[in-house]
Amino acid sequence: MVPVTGTLVLLRHGESTWNQQNLFTGWHDVPLTEKGATEATTAGHTIAADHIQFDVAHTSLLARAVVSCQLALEAMDQVSLPVQRHWRLNERHYGALQGLDKKETTSLHGAEQTHLWRRSYDVPPPPVDTDSPEHPINDPRYRLLPPDVLPATECLADVVARVLPYWHDVVAPQLLTNQNVLIVAHGNSLRALLMHLEAVSRDDIAELNIPTGAPRRYRFDAALQVTNAAYLGDQQAVAAAAAQVAAQSNV
Amino acid sequence: MVPVTGTLVLLRHGESTWNQQNLFTGWHDVPLTEKGATEATTAGHTIAADHIQFDVAHTSLLARAVVSCQLALEAMDQVSLPVQRHWRLNERHYGALQGLDKKETTSLHGAEQTHLWRRSYDVPPPPVDTDSPEHPINDPRYRLLPPDVLPATECLADVVARVLPYWHDVVAPQLLTNQNVLIVAHGNSLRALLMHLEAVSRDDIAELNIPTGAPRRYRFDAALQVTNAAYLGDQQAVAAAAAQVAAQSNV
Repeated sequence: MVPVTGTLVLLRHGESTWNQQNLFTGWHDVPLTEKGATEATTAGHTIAADHIQFDVAHTSLLARAVVSCQLALEAMDQVSLPVQRHWRLNERHYGALQGLDKKETTSLHGAEQTHLWRRSYDVPPPPVDTDSPEHPINDPRYRLLPPDVLPATECLADVVARVLPYWHDVVAPQLLTNQNVLIVAHGNSLRALLMHLEAVSRDDIAELNIPTGAPRRYRFDAALQVTNAAYLGDQQAVAAAAAQVAAQSNV
Repeated sequence: MVPVTGTLVLLRHGESTWNQQNLFTGWHDVPLTEKGATEATTAGHTIAADHIQFDVAHTSLLARAVVSCQLALEAMDQVSLPVQRHWRLNERHYGALQGLDKKETTSLHGAEQTHLWRRSYDVPPPPVDTDSPEHPINDPRYRLLPPDVLPATECLADVVARVLPYWHDVVAPQLLTNQNVLIVAHGNSLRALLMHLEAVSRDDIAELNIPTGAPRRYRFDAALQVTNAAYLGDQQAVAAAAAQVAAQSNV
């Protein structure tokens, strides 16, 4: 049967400089490390091996996703694609934790509180002030957004609420017109999408992560219900990467 | 001081055939009556008298708003404007009440229950089934939306949740780039916007209505906070229209 809906691939960006330094990153804009760039290129080759010709790509407004998307498209030889960028695909805003060392935060606030901020569905970290350089109101890339929609901190529930309108209004209509769609984004904006697509519960999402460099492919029926979800590439490597993500104190 | 943000005008469409017949309308698509068409033209003249040159207009996907927008723009001699139409500006979906006579509904379910469905913030009417012609899943104009975002019924809280992403992503950036914006929509999608813009509480919104044919003009500061909100036109007529809306069993 000829598919009537497009195929979707979700790709999480690879290692950034702050991942490497074990700092909470959130909306702070940091570049990929060399390892992160290689992860994006490798992911592009993995997707190319599945012979998906995309029609459109989406990324966040953060360089580590934008550059990962570009590198993956280069590896696929599909750089002519239109690429849409949107703040709704940004990483979770980590509030006052942005820029802090993860281990130091655990020492300072305790393992339980830090785990709550990192993994609970609806407990956001303390917010940043509007005069903090970590507040998006001070970043010109968000100047055309009204201040009340710019987060000073976010929990995963907040991310779900702001990602879904982009899914419903922008991505879903493309899939429903049989376009193949690539989304290159972040741990938490992708978890929000995965939670919605795969009907994952609030409890189960806590320990669920898309590994970096492991493209996740979705196929849909005509009503945009998922009929197949699978990581592309070497399945043993994917399982190892997922275990590594779960083990590290990294988000 | 030269304004740095655009001016916004909200206009509620005039009488439709189902308003006239006292039926719950919601997402059901019915034409304006002759009176409703005249209201739209008159509102256009009222806005023209305020000398606002718009840059863009927005309406819902429902004919009574689309046609009201067109008639108002004709009266203003501004038909060359781009007009964006979006389902997020639609009227509240009235669920299983759509098409029922308002008085009969009151007789059948009691005045208290009917008032609750009409005026509570978070109690939706009973939903329609997906095989009902009143379910938007059966209307080809919504075919590019995923089924899970299409409402089978809505309370005002649902309308607020679906209108605000359009405000944040589409309208607000236009105002923040100093474009003047006209929105022609419905009683409840406009109440949702008004609630947000004027920080109206859940309790107070229950008895608050934008009258038909009374354009409401907003001016903003650079942070898109409202600095001035006013109905245009004859203030006595506006007050009379508001009182009439409050008195009738009409939504």
